[in-house]
Amino acid sequence: MELISENKVFGGLHQRFKHQSAANNCEMTFAIFLPKTDSKNNKLPVLYWLSGLTCTDENFMQKAGVFKYANEHGIAIVAPDTSPRGEDVADDENGSYDFGLGAGFYLNATQAPFAAHYKMYDYITVELPKLIESNFPISDKKAISGHSMGGHGALTIGLKNSHQYVSISAFAPITNPMDCPWGVKAFTGYLGEDESLWAQYDATKLMLEHKIERKLPIKIDQGGDDTFLTEQLKPEALLNAAKAIGYDVDYQLHDGYDHSYFFISSFIEQHIEFHAQYLNA
Amino acid sequence: MELISENKVFGGLHQRFKHQSAANNCEMTFAIFLPKTDSKNNKLPVLYWLSGLTCTDENFMQKAGVFKYANEHGIAIVAPDTSPRGEDVADDENGSYDFGLGAGFYLNATQAPFAAHYKMYDYITVELPKLIESNFPISDKKAISGHSMGGHGALTIGLKNSHQYVSISAFAPITNPMDCPWGVKAFTGYLGEDESLWAQYDATKLMLEHKIERKLPIKIDQGGDDTFLTEQLKPEALLNAAKAIGYDVDYQLHDGYDHSYFFISSFIEQHIEFHAQYLNA
Repeated sequence: MELISENKVFGGLHQRFKHQSAANNCEMTFAIFLPKTDSKNNKLPVLYWLSGLTCTDENFMQKAGVFKYANEHGIAIVAPDTSPRGEDVADDENGSYDFGLGAGFYLNATQAPFAAHYKMYDYITVELPKLIESNFPISDKKAISGHSMGGHGALTIGLKNSHQYVSISAFAPITNPMDCPWGVKAFTGYLGEDESLWAQYDATKLMLEHKIERKLPIKIDQGGDDTFLTEQLKPEALLNAAKAIGYDVDYQLHDGYDHSYFFISSFIEQHIEFHAQYLNA
Repeated sequence: MELISENKVFGGLHQRFKHQSAANNCEMTFAIFLPKTDSKNNKLPVLYWLSGLTCTDENFMQKAGVFKYANEHGIAIVAPDTSPRGEDVADDENGSYDFGLGAGFYLNATQAPFAAHYKMYDYITVELPKLIESNFPISDKKAISGHSMGGHGALTIGLKNSHQYVSISAFAPITNPMDCPWGVKAFTGYLGEDESLWAQYDATKLMLEHKIERKLPIKIDQGGDDTFLTEQLKPEALLNAAKAIGYDVDYQLHDGYDHSYFFISSFIEQHIEFHAQYLNA
C-alpha cells in the first residue's frame, strides 16, 4: 500500500492509497476516512461506500459532507474506485461512460477482454476488507452503501453476503439491472448472454429467487426528479420483489431531488444514523 | 439571465445562471443557494463567496457542505466565477493556473490585453449585487467570504466597501499580495508597475494606510499544514497591520489542516454562524 495523499478533515483523517490488487490484477486506488476518536485502542466499524458511473474514490469524499456524522458515530468510511484502471485494462470500445473504465458494476466479468481485470465483486467482498482490516484500526463490523451503480453494488453485495454486513443502504440504486439499458449493456459485455449469470447480480432477482440468507435492514432514498428514475433505476421492481418475499425495505421518495450529490449530501446524515444503529450495536 | 441548471438541496434551491456582464464585457456564470424558508415575503440576507485560483462557481457549492448551516440561519449564498471567461478573453500566455482565466484576483485590470475584460472588482461590488437584488428575494444585507485568492478578494472588497457589507471572513487568504509571488505576478500583469495601484488591492496595505472607513468584524481561519502558508499567504503581515491600527481580527490557526476544501468544510459552520450574527441582527 502506498499513501497518495492525506487531509485532516473535521478532526479526522482522509487518506488515499494505491495498492496492487490480486483480484483485479492491476493497481487500485481507494480512500479511507478515519474519524476523530478519543481511543487509540478500539477498532472502528466501517461503512463501505460504492460510487456510481464515472466516479472514482474521490467523489463521495469531496461532495457528500459525511465526515461530521461519521465522527459523531465513530464510523470509518472506505470508498473504493468503481473499476479496475490502467493502460492494459480494457475499456468500452466506444469510450462510453456506462461501460468499462469507471463502470465496473461490482461484478466478476467472465467475458474477454474484461475477465482479465474486472473482478470488482471479489475486490469489494474479499480483498479490500482484508486489506483494510490488516492495515487500519478497523473491526470486521461492516455496513455497505452506494449511489446508482454503487447502490446496485451495495444491494447485491449486501444481499449475497448477509453474514458479512450489518446493514445496507442506497441512494437512487439501479434495482433491476437485467431490465434496464445500463444493466443490459453491462451484463452483456461483462457476463455474456447467459441470463442465469446476470441474475446473480440483480437485487430484484436475488429477492425473487430467495437467494438471501439473512434479511439485513435496508434503507433506500430516491429523488423524485431523478432523470434516470423510470428508465434505469426502477425502484418499484425491487419494492415489489421485497413485498412478495416479506422483506421490509425502508424506501423514501423525495420530491424534487435529482440524481446528484446535492441529493446525496441532503440525506447522508440519515444514512449514517441508520447504519450507526447496527454498526455500534 | 439564463438558468443553466438547478438542484434541490437540503430543502433549498441551488441554481446556476449565466448572464452578459457589462463590467467584464463577457458572459459570466454564477451560482446561488436559496435556503429553505417558511416565508415567501421576507427578503434574505446574502453571503458572497469568492473562490480561489482555478475555481469556478461550482467548487464551493459542491464541496463546502454549507447548505445545512445556511438553511439554519436563513442566509442565501452567491458564488461568482473567479475571472471573466470566453474565447476573446485574454489568458496568461503560458496558460499558468495563477494568472488569467480562473485567476482574476478581484481587481480592475488597467493593462492590455487584460483591461478589456478583467473587471472583477466592479463586477463583485456593483454589477452582481444589483443583479442578485433585482432578480431574487434577496435584501441588500451582505457579508463576504472567500478562500485563498478569494480570501484576498473578501478582505480587500470588504475593507474598501465597509458600508456595503456587515462582516468579512476568509479561509487561508492571501493577505499581502504585494509581497508574495502570486500577488506580484498578478498585480504586475493586471496593473502594471505602479505600486500605488497595487496598494489599493492589498489588505495589509489598506490597513496600514488607514484606508478603512468602518472596522467590520473579521474572522480568518488558516490551516497550519497549508503548503502555501509561508510563501504566499503570510497571515502575520495582516495581523501585524491590524495590531498597528488597533483593528481586532479573529484569527485562528488550525494545526494539521491543509489548503483544500477538506479544511474549508471542517470550519464552514463556524463561518456561517459568524456572519449570521450580523446578517440577522
